[in-house]
Amino acid sequence: MSLLVTGSIAIDTVKTPCGVSENCLGGSAVYFCMAASFFTPVRLVGVIGGDCPFDLAKVFADRDVDLTGLEVRESSKTFRWAGSYYGAMDERTTDKLELNVLAEEPPSVPAEYKDSKFVFLANTAPALQLQLLGQIDKPTFVAADTMNCWIDGHLDDLKKLLKKINCLIINEDEARMLAGQSNLTGAGEKILNMGPNIVIIKKGESGSMAFSADGERFILPAYRASEVKDPTGAGDSFAGGVMGYLAQAGRVDFESLKKAIAYGTVAASFAIAGFSLTGLTSINKSDIDNRFETFKELIKF
Amino acid sequence: MSLLVTGSIAIDTVKTPCGVSENCLGGSAVYFCMAASFFTPVRLVGVIGGDCPFDLAKVFADRDVDLTGLEVRESSKTFRWAGSYYGAMDERTTDKLELNVLAEEPPSVPAEYKDSKFVFLANTAPALQLQLLGQIDKPTFVAADTMNCWIDGHLDDLKKLLKKINCLIINEDEARMLAGQSNLTGAGEKILNMGPNIVIIKKGESGSMAFSADGERFILPAYRASEVKDPTGAGDSFAGGVMGYLAQAGRVDFESLKKAIAYGTVAASFAIAGFSLTGLTSINKSDIDNRFETFKELIKF
Repeated sequence: MSLLVTGSIAIDTVKTPCGVSENCLGGSAVYFCMAASFFTPVRLVGVIGGDCPFDLAKVFADRDVDLTGLEVRESSKTFRWAGSYYGAMDERTTDKLELNVLAEEPPSVPAEYKDSKFVFLANTAPALQLQLLGQIDKPTFVAADTMNCWIDGHLDDLKKLLKKINCLIINEDEARMLAGQSNLTGAGEKILNMGPNIVIIKKGESGSMAFSADGERFILPAYRASEVKDPTGAGDSFAGGVMGYLAQAGRVDFESLKKAIAYGTVAASFAIAGFSLTGLTSINKSDIDNRFETFKELIKF
Repeated sequence: MSLLVTGSIAIDTVKTPCGVSENCLGGSAVYFCMAASFFTPVRLVGVIGGDCPFDLAKVFADRDVDLTGLEVRESSKTFRWAGSYYGAMDERTTDKLELNVLAEEPPSVPAEYKDSKFVFLANTAPALQLQLLGQIDKPTFVAADTMNCWIDGHLDDLKKLLKKINCLIINEDEARMLAGQSNLTGAGEKILNMGPNIVIIKKGESGSMAFSADGERFILPAYRASEVKDPTGAGDSFAGGVMGYLAQAGRVDFESLKKAIAYGTVAASFAIAGFSLTGLTSINKSDIDNRFETFKELIKF
């Protein structure tokens, strides 16, 4: 089934203990598309400025990514982010953040995307996520990401959003913050009561947990690659794998969701093996499938 | 097969966000025995002072725990530890540490224990662990725990110990410290080269990983109980489940080890549900087995 993503396209500068990558392509929608396109065609809604040095048509040349929803605003500047990771790379600092075109009106959802059935609203202001979602006719399954600044400063909007979506994908600290509860099992259950019928909590290198309103539960460790070069985009690649698999399967039952989360975990494990998108561009679908099977064996007892 | 543990017996005072437990029974050997005795008889080697208010024969009355190796030094004082856990209880501070009898000569291994086949050397100075191990004739499988202060200040002794044991059970920060490497997969592999043919890395509420010298790998999330009251003893209960299962099975192949780690995870999940030993004393073997099956389902995809 059709899959649409709304999110950022960024010019990133990333420092990690393994090196530096300056002015490389990044952004939630880009990582999401790269991961999801292993499974199913993806429709992108995003906006860049006239200064963007990347030709996204070339970036996604080998992938089934529809760029009809890519808006180029010649007089604006592209979103820029610079960050550094230290030690075991489980924490990062933001060195620079220039919202630029992201501080303007969001892009429109093209008419030919309005029938999209699977939708991922990458992290941005919940009011914008609602505005983007409102442009889609009758989606089957909507997932969204959010972050601390929206929980802190835009909780009313976020609560409205939570009532409109099927699935929240959120990291562990944000889940604790949103639920006001430190125990993650309790936090997951509390967030279910806020609206979504699926909650997926991402725990970085510790894996993920999923909760359904029907009382189903799932926990999964991360796939530990021996090579981690750049964790940027891990969460969006995870979401891309999850949503890509679900859209391809055309099912959203909990058994399918478990497989989807395992595929998301595998996609993220490849994403972090190289700087920028190289971890995902250097592999093919059979690499994903092989690691999925390896992963399944690795946790079996 | 016979299972022996050497470790501490403590009077603990623990504060967590769920309450306070003053002067309760604790210590690595006590938690280990309580968890391991669900699976197999356990022989305890430990020492207390004349001030110890607990009758260990009564504590273990319902369990098959041999206390021949319990030494009471009337003129000495029992080891005391006080600690506090905050927030999500993944970090703790030590408020008080009185080694007392643990700073004296270690207890002797009784003659009738010398034929023990499975041995767990709970955390203490590696020189003492070596001294205790030297008193056992011909063990089949020896596992040990260690901690940062020995890696930091007694590395030569620890390296000698690593060449004498089959399995090191260590937490993630200590694994990174010992290996001098932040990536845990790399750290696990590096520690294998120091001697043990099995390395198990404990990651607290993020689960565990295991590595064998034959290149086998296993990862497992923690079992998330919705109730966590007191994390004290989680690691020793985990080790008790692991060693208890292996000794009962009488096998140490990697497939058995995977099951053992899952049982250890389940034992730890019960241990943290109550203060002191109540999480483990309030259950029976069928509770362990039922949660083992639930856990298996929970992570299957």
